[in-house]
Amino acid sequence: MLGDEIVSRINQLGAISETGDNLTRIFLSPEHRTAADLILSWMKDAGMAARLDAISNVCGRYEGDRPGLPCLMLGSHYDTVRDAGKWDGPLGVITAIACVADLNRRGVRLPFAVEIVGFADEEGVRFASTLLGSRAIAGTFEASVLDARDATGLTMREAMVQFGLDPGRIGDAARKRGELHAYVELHIEQGPVLEQQNLPVGVVTAISGATRLAAHLTGMAGHAGTVPMALRRDALAGAAECIVSVEQFCKADSAGLVGTVGVINAMPGATNVIPGRVSFALDIRAPADQHRKQAVAEIVRQIEAIAKRRELSLQIDVTHENRTAPCAPWLKAQMAEAVATEGLSAFELPSGAGHDGMAMIDISDVAMLFVRCRGGISHNPAEHVEPADADAGARVLLRFVENFRPKA
Amino acid sequence: MLGDEIVSRINQLGAISETGDNLTRIFLSPEHRTAADLILSWMKDAGMAARLDAISNVCGRYEGDRPGLPCLMLGSHYDTVRDAGKWDGPLGVITAIACVADLNRRGVRLPFAVEIVGFADEEGVRFASTLLGSRAIAGTFEASVLDARDATGLTMREAMVQFGLDPGRIGDAARKRGELHAYVELHIEQGPVLEQQNLPVGVVTAISGATRLAAHLTGMAGHAGTVPMALRRDALAGAAECIVSVEQFCKADSAGLVGTVGVINAMPGATNVIPGRVSFALDIRAPADQHRKQAVAEIVRQIEAIAKRRELSLQIDVTHENRTAPCAPWLKAQMAEAVATEGLSAFELPSGAGHDGMAMIDISDVAMLFVRCRGGISHNPAEHVEPADADAGARVLLRFVENFRPKA
Repeated sequence: MLGDEIVSRINQLGAISETGDNLTRIFLSPEHRTAADLILSWMKDAGMAARLDAISNVCGRYEGDRPGLPCLMLGSHYDTVRDAGKWDGPLGVITAIACVADLNRRGVRLPFAVEIVGFADEEGVRFASTLLGSRAIAGTFEASVLDARDATGLTMREAMVQFGLDPGRIGDAARKRGELHAYVELHIEQGPVLEQQNLPVGVVTAISGATRLAAHLTGMAGHAGTVPMALRRDALAGAAECIVSVEQFCKADSAGLVGTVGVINAMPGATNVIPGRVSFALDIRAPADQHRKQAVAEIVRQIEAIAKRRELSLQIDVTHENRTAPCAPWLKAQMAEAVATEGLSAFELPSGAGHDGMAMIDISDVAMLFVRCRGGISHNPAEHVEPADADAGARVLLRFVENFRPKA
Repeated sequence: MLGDEIVSRINQLGAISETGDNLTRIFLSPEHRTAADLILSWMKDAGMAARLDAISNVCGRYEGDRPGLPCLMLGSHYDTVRDAGKWDGPLGVITAIACVADLNRRGVRLPFAVEIVGFADEEGVRFASTLLGSRAIAGTFEASVLDARDATGLTMREAMVQFGLDPGRIGDAARKRGELHAYVELHIEQGPVLEQQNLPVGVVTAISGATRLAAHLTGMAGHAGTVPMALRRDALAGAAECIVSVEQFCKADSAGLVGTVGVINAMPGATNVIPGRVSFALDIRAPADQHRKQAVAEIVRQIEAIAKRRELSLQIDVTHENRTAPCAPWLKAQMAEAVATEGLSAFELPSGAGHDGMAMIDISDVAMLFVRCRGGISHNPAEHVEPADADAGARVLLRFVENFRPKA
């Protein structure tokens, strides 16, 4: 049973926090250092050569049946959001170490090396830029981020120096395409699908691409009592129709499309005044880029039609766009095989959330295994994984590693 | 042409403001005193006996053909909202004075007295309680308001003393039912109906009653990427459906019903998080109480059905309720006659906004005449009345007063 040790280590890592009463562990902080040291010690205990790289990713290597072979890279991140759960990120690092420790205990050497990376920053809390650790390894770290400032005004460059790193040497963290057979990450689902399917694990099909849009509707403010319904140009009623329309459109889709309005602001915002201006933010995701782009175009067309019919002026802009990172079919197949070998149903699902694979795909094929989390709750202290599910995830990952065949 | 003098006085009164760059004149302020003194001087110039009453309403009396007769009371308010227009309130006071001045110039005495009241507080900006002036005259002033505090922490009681009034004597302002034949107010429409009808004035049928409700929908917050559409309990999508439904219901009504959602708040309010909680405020008005109550009940039923179908929990509460103040048919008829005599079309419309007649109806039959304002805009520096429309309003009001027959 690997699950018990995993849960114990999740709790140890979860206790390393900036604050006493909740979990916050951000990039280049003292807690980051403490957590890195703990993970390094676990890697060494598992028989790995372990070090911090140039951006403070924790990197461990377990040699194959001869030294210097290309690796199967496993990993996840060990930074957290503010007021985080304990599982998002650390589960993937700790489970991978548990798998290697098991190989090491049994003296198993494979025809490839196994490397584990604990990425130093995936959430992007401190410098408002995500995937910093995996981008450094993929060689796509953007130097301009070094000038980004945290909430206290410190630049990333200054924070690195304080941490004992050389900002001029981030390039040293970069790996080359031929060094990796694949990048494979185990992560909690952060959604309710596996729970609803009554399954402990799921095989990820793709990390969905996302488009974010900002919409601004302008009508005419007016007195809630004096303007008859027929003479209104109510920006909020218009926005409400748009929100219902986005929901209906995405609900009717059967290819993983999701659309969310998470932010709305109606102005002037008084009980007795018809809103003259409304802004809202739209987040559209799908496991295939072409499908997402078509959906965004159709949603924008519907919003434009609603605005036109209601005589509202509309400004709608794409504020952010992320391409899909599809999981490689040959890796998905081996992962599904591992799931089945462990006696489980190999259920496939997309990842709506972003993960380090989005950066790693630039130098390697990628795959992911999701582990069920309670209620789909994440980024919240209530985030929880049952020990039996952590164990199932570990067994599947171990089986995957032991049976791994590099792409021909 | 009465319009020119009216516009000139509107500008004089509009210059009396707490702030230099916009118009703000609130209850019991130094500007209130300055404005009261100016109105008192205009009343005296018009041949009226004029005084401040116990709550600082400006009261003028023009005797009839013998002293001590019951009066036809004309009036409106002279306080303003913050960043106000110049016409909302003052137009009714200034026009009434212009009418009496015209009678006085011509030596006309009527078989009833004419009184004019400039109400000291209708908007309720300072102590968050409206119609304070007219409630004092109607004898319905609630003493508890004396303990209400303004933004600086001063109670109304203290502010009255500073102003030179005795809070213990507010009851002295109250008038008795038999002293008034009627209360008649001229006011800007504050809506777009007369402009749309291409008419300078309109006869008000009723001051619509209003119900305000606060609705709280609770679903389940979640990651915008990881929760499939079918598993969502999105409180904002639910609220949007409610808003569309309120709009459709009110649009289908042909008896003056209006419904507005002016405030909405979606929590937690992040682009990538499905809103778990949404609050919104509903304002429902209609010219007939029974009709409004039925409409509110039906709207609440529809919101309940939407919440139930979407598995959202709902709390919905009435936060405020105002009964309709119907205009007396005999007064409406005489007002329509005056409009027609001036060669205009006697168009009827309800008042969706509140007015002092809502308080005055407790001691008198009431009527109102609306004057067109540009774009229906009010409570805004852009509030505007054409001089020709101000003149038309004055001519109709003068005709109404001269031809006024008390109820048999």
